[in-house]
Amino acid sequence: MDLKQIVRDVLDFPKEGIVFKDITPILQSPEGLKASIDQMMDKLEGVDFDLIIGPESRGFIFGVPLAYNMNKGFIPIRKKGKLPYETVEKEYDLEYGTATIEMHIDAIKPGQKVVIIDDLLATGGTSKAIIDLIEQVGGEVVKLVYLIELEFLKGRDVLKDYSVESIIKY
Amino acid sequence: MDLKQIVRDVLDFPKEGIVFKDITPILQSPEGLKASIDQMMDKLEGVDFDLIIGPESRGFIFGVPLAYNMNKGFIPIRKKGKLPYETVEKEYDLEYGTATIEMHIDAIKPGQKVVIIDDLLATGGTSKAIIDLIEQVGGEVVKLVYLIELEFLKGRDVLKDYSVESIIKY
Repeated sequence: MDLKQIVRDVLDFPKEGIVFKDITPILQSPEGLKASIDQMMDKLEGVDFDLIIGPESRGFIFGVPLAYNMNKGFIPIRKKGKLPYETVEKEYDLEYGTATIEMHIDAIKPGQKVVIIDDLLATGGTSKAIIDLIEQVGGEVVKLVYLIELEFLKGRDVLKDYSVESIIKY
Repeated sequence: MDLKQIVRDVLDFPKEGIVFKDITPILQSPEGLKASIDQMMDKLEGVDFDLIIGPESRGFIFGVPLAYNMNKGFIPIRKKGKLPYETVEKEYDLEYGTATIEMHIDAIKPGQKVVIIDDLLATGGTSKAIIDLIEQVGGEVVKLVYLIELEFLKGRDVLKDYSVESIIKY
């Protein structure tokens, strides 16, 4: 199934001049939802890992079904203040200002191998912050898998030391 | 598997006096994740429906794997300003102030039968707002399934005209 055909371009979102890649038509279609998750799962075939990590909130959409299907645990990464228990946090730069993400301090045991799942690879800034959090607690990032990659933003340059896969490329 | 045993109580989150039911230990455990989704799926056995609806962001965690497993589409409900395309919205009351949720205007066709999935039934306020959104566009809510129900908050009273199921009750 060619998922690219059902991604919807939304002009000027979240701000003027941006063409937003809207994945909700993929999710809305039973065939699209199944194909997107199955195609991401194919990228993990033969990969040895313990946990799937997904950032709030679209990383939850693809990360949890992959964890379920592959019999792994799922670790949520959330914006600061959302996780109830003790956390580790990482501040990172946005185009304007900064953002801070958090993970529970007991989410990953030292030496555990983890896969990061998200809907979109853009500049790679959020993914690099997630990698830093994981490595801070002793986890090992063995692969990153995205549904969509905006190649012109060169996120792979930021993630050049890691194995990166994506399904739909622009 | 008794999921209640691996829910973690976190005191004074999000504010003093609240005992927060932390589900991340369930997600972190491959067996817990599988059991939580499978037990919610059991509640949908024999139910005739077209779509699963889940609110941001913990509704995504359980809603998407259920949609995937049951070969249905998934519709995200998000906080105002997050969905890129044209939306319908619903404002509702919180303990202090109000919140507004949105759904894409083309998410549900008139007459489609939908199931609402979320992690927690508390007062039922968010769920009632979601029901209003769905009915506004002509959808029919056939069931609501939650992982956790805080029975002392009497959310079922607010949802008394609907079929409500939950896995873990307090």
